[in-house]
Amino acid sequence: MTAGTLAVVGLGPGTADWRLPEAEVALAAATDLVGYIPYVERVPERPGLIRHASDNRVEIDRARHAFALALEGRHVAVVSGGDPGVFAMAAAVFEALEGEPAFRAVPVRVVPGLSAMQAAAARLGAPLGHDFCAMSLSDNLKPWDVVLRRLTAVAQGDFVLALYNPASKARPTRLGEAFGHLRALKDAATPVAFARAIGRPDERIHLTSLGEADPALVDMATLVVIGSSETRWVAGADGRRWMLTPRSYGMARP
Amino acid sequence: MTAGTLAVVGLGPGTADWRLPEAEVALAAATDLVGYIPYVERVPERPGLIRHASDNRVEIDRARHAFALALEGRHVAVVSGGDPGVFAMAAAVFEALEGEPAFRAVPVRVVPGLSAMQAAAARLGAPLGHDFCAMSLSDNLKPWDVVLRRLTAVAQGDFVLALYNPASKARPTRLGEAFGHLRALKDAATPVAFARAIGRPDERIHLTSLGEADPALVDMATLVVIGSSETRWVAGADGRRWMLTPRSYGMARP
Repeated sequence: MTAGTLAVVGLGPGTADWRLPEAEVALAAATDLVGYIPYVERVPERPGLIRHASDNRVEIDRARHAFALALEGRHVAVVSGGDPGVFAMAAAVFEALEGEPAFRAVPVRVVPGLSAMQAAAARLGAPLGHDFCAMSLSDNLKPWDVVLRRLTAVAQGDFVLALYNPASKARPTRLGEAFGHLRALKDAATPVAFARAIGRPDERIHLTSLGEADPALVDMATLVVIGSSETRWVAGADGRRWMLTPRSYGMARP
Repeated sequence: MTAGTLAVVGLGPGTADWRLPEAEVALAAATDLVGYIPYVERVPERPGLIRHASDNRVEIDRARHAFALALEGRHVAVVSGGDPGVFAMAAAVFEALEGEPAFRAVPVRVVPGLSAMQAAAARLGAPLGHDFCAMSLSDNLKPWDVVLRRLTAVAQGDFVLALYNPASKARPTRLGEAFGHLRALKDAATPVAFARAIGRPDERIHLTSLGEADPALVDMATLVVIGSSETRWVAGADGRRWMLTPRSYGMARP
């Protein structure tokens, strides 16, 4: 039997205004959607489209299921929020491919999407305007001491940091531990922003500093941005503040 | 006089398939386009749209010009390739705002876009599937010793690295120096990819390793991706190789 295809498709951060045309085309061409329930539900039902919504948090199982469907000749879209390449389904799909040579018969492609840090950055101003790092705070798949080692490296390099998966019920103390670790290495006045559910109706921004940052205000829908030593607030219209990491570093202002 | 508006708009990496609907709406609403010539030329001419294409490489001057037009009541789109928030025009716009209180009368917003590292990642597989850093190798606006310090931090944190602006005629030796610096800190077998002009007709991928990486193959349209210790190649259909940074770190494979 001729194999179908597998596309890993990024839905972006909530609003359809932030979904790429290539993703719309890929979704329209799919016979099967595979993904975590809230993402699958963001794609409207239509005749001929089978939705395999999963509450299974084991991403590798979803990826294997998608390959198995494609081997049966189906055209499968594995859907992911944000960019599938950034802390999302693309890695799980290639891990599944690595583990099963039979899956090589399936043509695979990745359709990128806007990631949460970019949505947050757009609302905040230009916090990622200079060198930055993106980290997941989850220690489900990496030891906590690796997280701390990377936070140290981020501080030593004086990078801006975008922190994904900053909180969960299973490990409520981790973000506080991360802030504590960074406070020993960075200025307490460092600008910090909590950008929650950006692009969704309940989006919310909270501006603070590393010294004042309160982990209780952060949930799993929040992206945390922590500035470098050059990041600062800029006054805008109507008393609002923008978060700016300038393009230059360690030089006199122009 | 009532002020107009200023939108910083990301055009994405070349192909219109990778431009967000929000960007199309913002461009359609603009009376004036401000930007570097190749970006302005990517937006079709239409009646009522004035294109201020600049060959001026001083981004802050373009940003100030955009605010001045908006203060005259114009609706200005400052256009940028990729994501304006990532090594592009958003930071320059907020630097201009910081420098001139009169500009606070102008409502500003940022329309994000897909950045080059995401386009590259989609073509490569899942190189950014775990914690990563994004750096500009340009030392126009930061001292070279800051670049080296950050490369050291990236290696110590064992991050994947996406390197923007890796080469220029004015400083042809910098990428070779960066590879040399990283070779002292990382395994020579570390996967490296050069992703050139992704999303444009002349796009090109070159897969190599840190030990073999040849700076002569890199130009300013290239995004360089350097793996972590966990990044590896995965065999796909028709003998192609994908670049994978798995979701787990320092743990047994599932």
